[in-house]
Amino acid sequence: MSLAQIFLSEFFGTFILILFGAGVCAAVNLPKSKAQGSGWIVIAFGWGLAVFMGVYAAYATGGHLNPAVTIGLAVAGKDLAAGVPATAANICIYILAQMLGAIVGAVAAWLAYKKHFDEQAPGEVKLSCFSTGPGIRSYGWNVVTEAIGTFALVSWVIYNGKSPSELGPLAVAFVIVAIGLSLGGPTGYAINPARDLGPRIAYAFLPIPGKGSADWAYSWVPVVGPLLGGVVAGLLIPNMAGLF
Amino acid sequence: MSLAQIFLSEFFGTFILILFGAGVCAAVNLPKSKAQGSGWIVIAFGWGLAVFMGVYAAYATGGHLNPAVTIGLAVAGKDLAAGVPATAANICIYILAQMLGAIVGAVAAWLAYKKHFDEQAPGEVKLSCFSTGPGIRSYGWNVVTEAIGTFALVSWVIYNGKSPSELGPLAVAFVIVAIGLSLGGPTGYAINPARDLGPRIAYAFLPIPGKGSADWAYSWVPVVGPLLGGVVAGLLIPNMAGLF
Amino acid sequence: MSLAQIFLSEFFGTFILILFGAGVCAAVNLPKSKAQGSGWIVIAFGWGLAVFMGVYAAYATGGHLNPAVTIGLAVAGKDLAAGVPATAANICIYILAQMLGAIVGAVAAWLAYKKHFDEQAPGEVKLSCFSTGPGIRSYGWNVVTEAIGTFALVSWVIYNGKSPSELGPLAVAFVIVAIGLSLGGPTGYAINPARDLGPRIAYAFLPIPGKGSADWAYSWVPVVGPLLGGVVAGLLIPNMAGLF
Amino acid sequence: MSLAQIFLSEFFGTFILILFGAGVCAAVNLPKSKAQGSGWIVIAFGWGLAVFMGVYAAYATGGHLNPAVTIGLAVAGKDLAAGVPATAANICIYILAQMLGAIVGAVAAWLAYKKHFDEQAPGEVKLSCFSTGPGIRSYGWNVVTEAIGTFALVSWVIYNGKSPSELGPLAVAFVIVAIGLSLGGPTGYAINPARDLGPRIAYAFLPIPGKGSADWAYSWVPVVGPLLGGVVAGLLIPNMAGLF
Repeated sequence: MSLAQIFLSEFFGTFILILFGAGVCAAVNLPKSKAQGSGWIVIAFGWGLAVFMGVYAAYATGGHLNPAVTIGLAVAGKDLAAGVPATAANICIYILAQMLGAIVGAVAAWLAYKKHFDEQAPGEVKLSCFSTGPGIRSYGWNVVTEAIGTFALVSWVIYNGKSPSELGPLAVAFVIVAIGLSLGGPTGYAINPARDLGPRIAYAFLPIPGKGSADWAYSWVPVVGPLLGGVVAGLLIPNMAGLF
Repeated sequence: MSLAQIFLSEFFGTFILILFGAGVCAAVNLPKSKAQGSGWIVIAFGWGLAVFMGVYAAYATGGHLNPAVTIGLAVAGKDLAAGVPATAANICIYILAQMLGAIVGAVAAWLAYKKHFDEQAPGEVKLSCFSTGPGIRSYGWNVVTEAIGTFALVSWVIYNGKSPSELGPLAVAFVIVAIGLSLGGPTGYAINPARDLGPRIAYAFLPIPGKGSADWAYSWVPVVGPLLGGVVAGLLIPNMAGLF
Repeated sequence: MSLAQIFLSEFFGTFILILFGAGVCAAVNLPKSKAQGSGWIVIAFGWGLAVFMGVYAAYATGGHLNPAVTIGLAVAGKDLAAGVPATAANICIYILAQMLGAIVGAVAAWLAYKKHFDEQAPGEVKLSCFSTGPGIRSYGWNVVTEAIGTFALVSWVIYNGKSPSELGPLAVAFVIVAIGLSLGGPTGYAINPARDLGPRIAYAFLPIPGKGSADWAYSWVPVVGPLLGGVVAGLLIPNMAGLF
Repeated sequence: MSLAQIFLSEFFGTFILILFGAGVCAAVNLPKSKAQGSGWIVIAFGWGLAVFMGVYAAYATGGHLNPAVTIGLAVAGKDLAAGVPATAANICIYILAQMLGAIVGAVAAWLAYKKHFDEQAPGEVKLSCFSTGPGIRSYGWNVVTEAIGTFALVSWVIYNGKSPSELGPLAVAFVIVAIGLSLGGPTGYAINPARDLGPRIAYAFLPIPGKGSADWAYSWVPVVGPLLGGVVAGLLIPNMAGLF
């Protein structure tokens, strides 16, 4: 595949991921939304199905949608997708596409909920439709939680020796629902640097009334934690799998 | 297939779609229903499974059940179903069958919930079992939201190069659940002109006590928005897919 | 298959169906249950998965678990299962096994929740773990609702030309979830004479403290309604399917 | 397979099971968790998907993750997995791996929710993230409930003649969701001695502030009940299946 093809595939897949993912957060959190207050089961299935749709869209490139998956597969010595070796250029283009897709996806979700973002609501509520934040702020432990969740995701992908699209979008969606239900309580499970940083950038420049801080002080946590979890999975799992 | 066969297939499928779809809205919204107040997760899965059942019923014609899907496939230059070319006559019979099926399905749902529709409740609540309405009324932005949701649905169908029944009724059902959870908050996700206008017509003529307005002022939004989204998907996606 | 084999298969399948189905009603309704008040989504998925498990258990006989399915298939001129023709003897043994399985399944669910049934609670609440009752009592309309729901179930089975086990237990489970979410609001969706009458008989003879009436006045509705729906589906669908 | 390979497979699978299972209990029960109070549907799907992930991880050994399954299969005269006969040594190594995996998995879940366990909350709430407890304390009936639930699980595995991994992780996950929704109300459905005793041991030694009793008086119930259910299933089902 050419770099342009890779870019378009991961861009479009991550765009879909964030359109639906930021969308479900807006659906549950924003005033006058018909789904307001519908709770964690809606969040978890909403993000699971966002991955389902995004992996379909980015089938050609394995449906990573997530730098921690891309880097984890590279560290594990796997190809990024069938016919796409883990070269530096390919890795960079994956991550660039994921970041830009996430930013544009967040803008699309904002358009879909435009009038609800214009309503009066606390700045944190509006930010929560874009980026994650901790239930209890404690950067070290927040990194631990994000790393554990991402370790589970990336080790599952590597352990099965396949990229997300080869595992089937539905199976990956169930893994995401599982992580959301079980490990999402403390930090809201970014488990993906692009998923968190891309929409945070969008939040910073979009004209949202009564917008509060983008909480840049926390922004490194959902980047470092997931990358840490992905790299550890990439180092550990191929060696463990050899023991079986 | 003959026009009569096409008509029967899409009529029966859309009938099932609206029987179950209007049914779940009645289940959640009407007084003394055992599911009253059970929330957005019930709505989203109810409509998803309504599509699951409807696509099965209309398997022979691809299970469109939705003029935006029919027109989107035609604009994209695809056949409507295996052995059914996108001629003007076929397109018209699809849409006619979908509209009539939706009207009759709404009548069936009303019969199933007859005594609950006879209870005292605000007119908007009774209408909400038939047709959608906006959380925040703003026709332009409501069209945008409907167009984005329908764009996602139709582009997914076209991108995969298949009609809903060929993609598997369950996969399409998951897409509908995803759209409901993530993009349904502002307008209640008609994403289908027949799904909204058909039941609205039924509401207008059914003998429901304490019935309020059918809100005709809004009725064009869930027709125009979905058609817009479907046509844009039909124009855009085949060209984008060529880039991959 | 011998009559004894048929009996055991349908008996065990319906036993499982009611153990899990009455179980989920007890889980949601009884005092001090950890699932108390968890709502309609739990009821609908609980019954769906009860059918999933029951159809697996009764795979050999097609997994009817329901006299309305057995009679509907017979009226439609189908075999009851692969190698099981719809003779009068076979039909009788199916229904007998379903009734007895439902009674014994209700006893098992009562044992699982024994201490919770011993707690103080209104008689209707305890009965609701065994049998259905209407949100609004109106025998005629309650029959209509039960008939519509069962018509959907049985016509889906016939239309696809297969018994539930041949359609796959998961597909049938989704149909049951759909009926529960969309058409269960008015009467609690018996859609199966054995599912309602069997546990009602168990309720009448079990030593439950503070037990109220078994509401025999209503007991014919969830027998007649489902049989009506199943027979109409059996008469109508094979002729309609011929038109396609 | 060598004993070491068996150990690693079941250890890692049960580790994943309890990381996700204890995780979802922490998500729903602990203060300041984003999923706090999200209810029984989250618990049931969280545990179902925990089994889904754990069975994948322990595919090579059949994905038992549960001494009641291992012993049930042995009693039924089945191999534990393809190429793994039910010898005493193999059975012991399965159970040892399950117990140790459960302990370490509980520690990992505690790390993921560390700051939330440090918050002020009743000791029973913190214990409930590790081990089960009864809604109504009555050791005899609590054993009955646990035995019925485990009987359903193990008989389903044996009846289909396969280990959990051969039935497909998703099918087993649905069975676990079914048991949770329908039979989990009285005791919180341990249905697995390792799932309950392992995390209870972890709870006893972990440095959790304001930690209450580990409720050792109850601890034998979720060991004896599940083993009883598994053994009865192992004795009964193979003989019953012969009748069909």
